[in-house]
Amino acid sequence: MPSRSLNNLIGALSKLPGIGPKTATRLALYIIKMPDEDVRELANAISSAKERIKACRICGNYSDEEICDICSDPQRDKGVICVVADSRDIMAIEGTREYKGLYHVLGGVLSPIDGIGPEQLRIKELLNRLEGVREVIIALSPTVEGEATTIYLANLLKPLGVKVTRIAPGIPVGGELDYADPATLIKSLEGRREI
Amino acid sequence: MPSRSLNNLIGALSKLPGIGPKTATRLALYIIKMPDEDVRELANAISSAKERIKACRICGNYSDEEICDICSDPQRDKGVICVVADSRDIMAIEGTREYKGLYHVLGGVLSPIDGIGPEQLRIKELLNRLEGVREVIIALSPTVEGEATTIYLANLLKPLGVKVTRIAPGIPVGGELDYADPATLIKSLEGRREI
Repeated sequence: MPSRSLNNLIGALSKLPGIGPKTATRLALYIIKMPDEDVRELANAISSAKERIKACRICGNYSDEEICDICSDPQRDKGVICVVADSRDIMAIEGTREYKGLYHVLGGVLSPIDGIGPEQLRIKELLNRLEGVREVIIALSPTVEGEATTIYLANLLKPLGVKVTRIAPGIPVGGELDYADPATLIKSLEGRREI
Repeated sequence: MPSRSLNNLIGALSKLPGIGPKTATRLALYIIKMPDEDVRELANAISSAKERIKACRICGNYSDEEICDICSDPQRDKGVICVVADSRDIMAIEGTREYKGLYHVLGGVLSPIDGIGPEQLRIKELLNRLEGVREVIIALSPTVEGEATTIYLANLLKPLGVKVTRIAPGIPVGGELDYADPATLIKSLEGRREI
């Protein structure tokens, strides 16, 4: 490599997920040709994101403040909490612009094999938020671990008198029926609705 | 988006080539979960690469010093100069570990449509380096612009009494003959060698 600092940059970029040495080189060469200001902006965005972002004290979502924009928004329906595994899921749901309630980030799903039990998830925090809540929507991926976590949460929440729902598994919109796997088809049939 | 600094980071990353909003989000979420030290290292690598990297005063390759490692290496054969369009091409040739001469970065190829004429390329600098040089290898991509630049340089260099060669166009090693385009096949036939 011609330059130690270029080498360092390529090395640092290759540590990012999905960035191999070729892409890292391409990005590095692009970066050193970028205007000074854009480079400063990129470097600052990286360090300040790492410094500033914390978990919202209520829902656990990423936030620059103690309490995130969603939890502090008076327009949101405080009677509904949507339980997700990760902040990323919130971005996906917010992307639909359909949901107006609050969220609760579990921080993962139950997975005994990875040593993730109920204590590792933000379940106690969820139970402490139920005052005035009419419905808890469990929005976990329909994987084995997601299913187990959904059932575990439902068993915990139902005795407390709150309505517990879950998002519907089924054929993705635009998907082909004959490409769907049997498990999805079964769930889709079970979840059929009158038209 | 839940956090302004996360938003900024995603925005800054999406400006990089080949990084769309989805990948930028994935990278940003990864970065804020990285250890503090790695994040600092990445941000520093970006700013210091931009600050430190300059063009080698002799060959034009990227370098942290006034004169790059290759030009200042006493082991390299100072009698051969390989002319390339870009520093990236040097990395590719160095990757073969076969070439032991020096390089000269043109900074592009002739492309009148993009306003790149001989004055925009480091051609004068090449002519000033020819003392003691036995051979100039022109290693430009066999595109229309690359061909035109190769011929232009050859016409300029030959009258000065230096041997001018060019890299061979042909079928890539491991490539299939019946997939090769006619132009490549013609070049490959023209360049045939006795065995």
